[in-house]
Amino acid sequence: MARIAIDMDNVMADLTQHLLRVYEQTYGAVIDPQQLNNVPEGSAFPEGVAIQLMNTPGFFRGIPVMPGSQEVIKALAEQHEVFVVSAATEFPLSLAEKLAWLNEHFPFISWRNIVFCGSKTIVEADYMIDDHDKNLRYFKGTRLLYSAPHNLMITDYKRVNSWEEVAAWFAANEVATV
Amino acid sequence: MARIAIDMDNVMADLTQHLLRVYEQTYGAVIDPQQLNNVPEGSAFPEGVAIQLMNTPGFFRGIPVMPGSQEVIKALAEQHEVFVVSAATEFPLSLAEKLAWLNEHFPFISWRNIVFCGSKTIVEADYMIDDHDKNLRYFKGTRLLYSAPHNLMITDYKRVNSWEEVAAWFAANEVATV
Repeated sequence: MARIAIDMDNVMADLTQHLLRVYEQTYGAVIDPQQLNNVPEGSAFPEGVAIQLMNTPGFFRGIPVMPGSQEVIKALAEQHEVFVVSAATEFPLSLAEKLAWLNEHFPFISWRNIVFCGSKTIVEADYMIDDHDKNLRYFKGTRLLYSAPHNLMITDYKRVNSWEEVAAWFAANEVATV
Repeated sequence: MARIAIDMDNVMADLTQHLLRVYEQTYGAVIDPQQLNNVPEGSAFPEGVAIQLMNTPGFFRGIPVMPGSQEVIKALAEQHEVFVVSAATEFPLSLAEKLAWLNEHFPFISWRNIVFCGSKTIVEADYMIDDHDKNLRYFKGTRLLYSAPHNLMITDYKRVNSWEEVAAWFAANEVATV
């Protein structure tokens, strides 16, 4: 049985879409999604605004689910040991909201398999699915980069563009099961 | 530089003393601390009461600091990579309270070095200081059992009875520094 560590923001949860929508609702202004490509996360918004939105009560509770993630993660969890590993301690309000969000959208994931951390260097697993180079870089197992606007130029990892691609990759690579 | 994973409840935070005190304040009854020795954690209280107290808002925020832990952990953090690793996802209310508690009593520990999890099998470090056999059992590094009433019979690990003993152990074992 392989252990798979899966990131939340921009992997299970569509943070990018939510930021754009909440920004529009809050400020009445629209940001062209193209502006997010190949720049650091949040930097296409006026300075400090993305961080401010992420520190607003309710922000993380309302993020839409990434299409396909529920079905694929459920199937993976039936054959493997799936851990959700989210860098959440930077945003104190996010902790309870992320837990409630997981309980609603991914009820098959036990509290035992949830990790809220800062640095992910302490995580030991066989596979990590994440959208950040900073998280994948020090990981010793197999690394899958989930595509996000900020990481489109990174070529150091196997890239997956959708949960369908994640499912196909695990199927093709015949990962050892129980 | 060694990485040291340190548990919160009954290691950094005196959960046992707090449970006894809050129980007395809530129910007006006293439990002899001796009754806690060598029985599973919480089982000396009427059935379900310990869990109920731990799910009460404010419970985790008010736990007293374990004597000596601040000084010794501060000194360890100056020479090593210290991570606080707490099994917190079982108690949703505890997440924000534990973070606030750490920020107050251990302000030198960055959010980057805090891990709130369920199972600790996913944690990779060189040393783990914990009061639970279930957490130490699957840990591949060096294991220190911090004494708590429920673990007095366990002889499988190096036992430490106080933070002074933790400091002395690290000093005597000349753990590699930066």
